[in-house]
Amino acid sequence: MYSVAIMGATGAVGADLLRTLERRNFPVASIKLLASERSAGKTLNFRGQTHTVELLTHDSFEGVDLVLASAGGSISTEFVPSAVKAGAVVVDNTSAFRMDEGVPLVVPEVNGDAVAGHKGIIANPNCSTIIMLMALAPIHRAAGLKRVVVSTYQAASGAGQAGMEELLEHSRHVLDGTPAPAAEKFAHSLAFNCIPHVDVFLDNGYSREEMKMVHETHKILGDDSIGITVTTVRVPVIRCHSESINIETHRKLSADEARAILAGAAGVEVVDDLARNMYPLATRAAHEEATFVGRIREDDTIANGLNLWVVGDQLLKGAALNTVQIAEILAERGLLAAKAKA
Amino acid sequence: MYSVAIMGATGAVGADLLRTLERRNFPVASIKLLASERSAGKTLNFRGQTHTVELLTHDSFEGVDLVLASAGGSISTEFVPSAVKAGAVVVDNTSAFRMDEGVPLVVPEVNGDAVAGHKGIIANPNCSTIIMLMALAPIHRAAGLKRVVVSTYQAASGAGQAGMEELLEHSRHVLDGTPAPAAEKFAHSLAFNCIPHVDVFLDNGYSREEMKMVHETHKILGDDSIGITVTTVRVPVIRCHSESINIETHRKLSADEARAILAGAAGVEVVDDLARNMYPLATRAAHEEATFVGRIREDDTIANGLNLWVVGDQLLKGAALNTVQIAEILAERGLLAAKAKA
Repeated sequence: MYSVAIMGATGAVGADLLRTLERRNFPVASIKLLASERSAGKTLNFRGQTHTVELLTHDSFEGVDLVLASAGGSISTEFVPSAVKAGAVVVDNTSAFRMDEGVPLVVPEVNGDAVAGHKGIIANPNCSTIIMLMALAPIHRAAGLKRVVVSTYQAASGAGQAGMEELLEHSRHVLDGTPAPAAEKFAHSLAFNCIPHVDVFLDNGYSREEMKMVHETHKILGDDSIGITVTTVRVPVIRCHSESINIETHRKLSADEARAILAGAAGVEVVDDLARNMYPLATRAAHEEATFVGRIREDDTIANGLNLWVVGDQLLKGAALNTVQIAEILAERGLLAAKAKA
Repeated sequence: MYSVAIMGATGAVGADLLRTLERRNFPVASIKLLASERSAGKTLNFRGQTHTVELLTHDSFEGVDLVLASAGGSISTEFVPSAVKAGAVVVDNTSAFRMDEGVPLVVPEVNGDAVAGHKGIIANPNCSTIIMLMALAPIHRAAGLKRVVVSTYQAASGAGQAGMEELLEHSRHVLDGTPAPAAEKFAHSLAFNCIPHVDVFLDNGYSREEMKMVHETHKILGDDSIGITVTTVRVPVIRCHSESINIETHRKLSADEARAILAGAAGVEVVDDLARNMYPLATRAAHEEATFVGRIREDDTIANGLNLWVVGDQLLKGAALNTVQIAEILAERGLLAAKAKA
């Protein structure tokens, strides 16, 4: 049983972290909810008990075994080192440490063994990366990925609770024919729109989100040779990301072979019955743990091509669930008892 | 001055056909509005005058010079031959005749000269094809397209006025927390969803919409060697299609060269200023005649790769505008006086 702290407990991912710890019966001895001044003092429910959110400080981690951090990159950069210093193991759901050497970047179904080398921090990948790799890692193992062309259809939840609320509020203004307030969580109003802009733009013309999907995939699969080109797009969907993925593999896979591989992959559900209009849908994937793959078909414009449509819940497999799954592996393998060893 | 008939006058494209004929001052001597029994008797406004919609019959085309047809493929299949027999020239905005030999398939900025060979029918391409080719044809001329990987973000307007209304109605139910009626215009509810299903599915696992984009592109560009693989997706947007396009060209084009080529292309506007969060947006492109291209960047996973984000108004450049532009070319070139010649 572990003493667990949650950084960013009042956010959208924070809420799903609590629900996921409950649902999966993670061995929590005590829970500490941490947030900024704005949210300290609020109360949240965990396993039927009310807990008051405490102000996050550098002294918050005394006696804590496990920190699940999801309060934003700058907060993690500032506070995670204090947690590690206090002897806690941190599973960090921000981009702060993902590309650091010595920090495992883990999707449990893909590279769970990578947790072994941790030095106090394990990073949870970007949500779009996780959802893509749930489908691509089994194919990579079977046939070797050569090149990936992916276009995303990303939900408002990637911008947190306020992002989802802004989408709904702006949508209501469009329906009512009243002017919406200025967009705050997105660069433009997301209501009935598609915005090809997620995270900031970099000098190479790609967004940071697009390059995260490239670099994180290379790190997680341990293979920098895979060509990956990405267009990330925000769409007016509440909490599930969809991805249109075109791949080229080193060895030929038929659509049926790919379907069989994915049907046998942990955490993946194949939904691919065109005669019954069955394929993954953002609205159906909401609150589901699985990543859904469909529209699996051969692309005959290249020798070894496939197209896939992949959908996952951004707040669960893209964030809270993957974070808790990492904690579960750490617990199973005795890698959480940092303090006991010290 | 021409006697013009519109088939499907009461639909979403029909409304934009009337507005486009007005806005562009097409030389209309008289106008005849044709529709099915359900809509006959309704009145519509054209150039300040009220016109009563007449029932479409095989005898509707007496004395008509030009028919703009947008009432659905089966209606065109049935009635367009009668229009041609009566001596009219038909610009058909359905898929009924697009792939027929002897029927020019025309995007005026791309292959306007193809109208010359018409035998009474000129076909207007699929909306997603037109919008894609507005961006790709200039690049094809400059550097030769080798392969195209495209994922679409298609608006509800592709399913007509009823499609747009269903999206808005279902969205309101989601916002109000009340159950929406069953989806009728889409396979599933489109509200806050992405549906990777446009038109029916074919035996090869692709949708007919996806294959239209392949075959129509080959016909319009006159080059079957271009590899084109497509994923078409319906998104909760009202009337503009967006497309994420990855291309491989035979000759290298830098992003700056591509930007310059597109900036000089007729009907195209480059919107690509990342520092000012400027890129094409579905909400901004609505009711605009131009096709907008942005996010132009090199894809270094292949030797000659580029990524583009392309947006156009599905009802205008994707349908009504392109149809009227074809009629304009026919008029300019004296190709409408079929009856006078007879």
